[in-house]
Amino acid sequence: MSRTVYVNGVFLPEHDAKISIFDRGFIFADGIYEVSAVMAGKLLDNDAHLKRLERSLGEIGMPMPMPAEEIVKIQKELIARNDIVEGTVYLQVTRGAADRDFPFPPADTMQTLVMFTQKRDFTNSPAARAGIRMATVRDIRWERRDIKSVALLAQVLAKQAAAEKGCQEAIMHTADGVVTEGGSSTIFIVTANGELVTRPLSNEVLPGITRQSLKLLCDERGVPFIERAFTVDEALAAPEVFVTSAGSFVTAVVEIDGKRIGGGQPGPVARRLREIYLDEAVKAGV
Amino acid sequence: MSRTVYVNGVFLPEHDAKISIFDRGFIFADGIYEVSAVMAGKLLDNDAHLKRLERSLGEIGMPMPMPAEEIVKIQKELIARNDIVEGTVYLQVTRGAADRDFPFPPADTMQTLVMFTQKRDFTNSPAARAGIRMATVRDIRWERRDIKSVALLAQVLAKQAAAEKGCQEAIMHTADGVVTEGGSSTIFIVTANGELVTRPLSNEVLPGITRQSLKLLCDERGVPFIERAFTVDEALAAPEVFVTSAGSFVTAVVEIDGKRIGGGQPGPVARRLREIYLDEAVKAGV
Repeated sequence: MSRTVYVNGVFLPEHDAKISIFDRGFIFADGIYEVSAVMAGKLLDNDAHLKRLERSLGEIGMPMPMPAEEIVKIQKELIARNDIVEGTVYLQVTRGAADRDFPFPPADTMQTLVMFTQKRDFTNSPAARAGIRMATVRDIRWERRDIKSVALLAQVLAKQAAAEKGCQEAIMHTADGVVTEGGSSTIFIVTANGELVTRPLSNEVLPGITRQSLKLLCDERGVPFIERAFTVDEALAAPEVFVTSAGSFVTAVVEIDGKRIGGGQPGPVARRLREIYLDEAVKAGV
Repeated sequence: MSRTVYVNGVFLPEHDAKISIFDRGFIFADGIYEVSAVMAGKLLDNDAHLKRLERSLGEIGMPMPMPAEEIVKIQKELIARNDIVEGTVYLQVTRGAADRDFPFPPADTMQTLVMFTQKRDFTNSPAARAGIRMATVRDIRWERRDIKSVALLAQVLAKQAAAEKGCQEAIMHTADGVVTEGGSSTIFIVTANGELVTRPLSNEVLPGITRQSLKLLCDERGVPFIERAFTVDEALAAPEVFVTSAGSFVTAVVEIDGKRIGGGQPGPVARRLREIYLDEAVKAGV
């Protein structure tokens, strides 16, 4: 069945959803995106996603294409029209279509705003039940990974390399084996003392929204949430490893490069955090 | 007047030239491009551009969308239909349209091939006559700059930063002041001994086609062509600096960060090399 998607003010069937070949998103990767999860028909952490959208846009010299409230209306319209109970709403803003030239186009160039939904079965996903496998990949991305841009070729190659090894996610690391993040997720290890460890925010990683929500929940519950870098070797030796993202919530990692993590099954900390995150996020969802 | 452009087998007016919002070029910057110059209605160095296209595609796991000879036919058709005497032919290949998911889409996904022309007045350009000004910008790109991908956001930001300083090009450098390349060009310095110096090829720079042609011409004429890294300070102290690219051929740099290079006018080496390059390239053009 064809989805209804949104392109520059118009709702239309996905097969008619087109943009100019001169769009700077297509020619230069000159655009920003966000993905919000939907559970029980409600948008999770959506305010935070739209705040990050505004921040990423600002970092590359673009304003919001419309006020956040207007974006939410379109997101909800898409959820309703496509009957999304569990899934995601994707949105992408680009600097618009203009004759090809690297510097920014004339100020009156209309930004492009594209939005579409994807149905997902989060509740019954194999990843939720059995965890995921990861493969290590050198992180070769640019130095502004804090900007959620559509210049994603390095992530495509990382996640393809992982997929070719039968893995669902890449674990990206520096030349000296320090973990940065997943191909499209934040990585945590759980120490023997039950502390959560994840890399501090900087230009080297995306400021994860699920990470941010989880931090709040941990702070409220007195769970130690430590922000420091860690190595692939530490992850391999950890009792538990998990990833967070809008599309995976909290998902246990059961294997890295073919080596079992903990017992090779989702551990108690990751399972519990997934429950807590989903309960709270759905309760606060809109 | 509206251009005729090419999109996936069809010649059509530019305002009707569209691609799916699900195109992986738009969503993931999952594509490769090339730009060939046209002088006297002829394509310059085109074989080399198409060889580099094939190489870049191979590096990200894509085949050529059609044999090089077929691409040349379309390039020539666009030159004829748009009456291009001086200008460029741009081409972009992406992994095609598929529902959004990072790893490569199903093998039967049709690649996207888009081509369009841009008219330019190379002969009478101010850059040719008076040279260009450059501004230094930190090079923050990914580690596979040898792949000519459309993930160009860092270059957009670099060239915009240069433009905001009244400059036509960015000179990108590492944190310790070593020059990598221009925002969309290769950089050369001329030493007091008349040697040309440019950075050696590696994953850190794009293998420039005009650079390659110039190297051949220098070798034939016994002009010393030295491949080594150099710093911004060396460039500032050099008698001449110039850039090469398909769209600029050989263009003198007369200012970097507001400081005059040589006499603040295009120097004799850059002027002579531009003449030689253009003579030979047009002679060999197709």
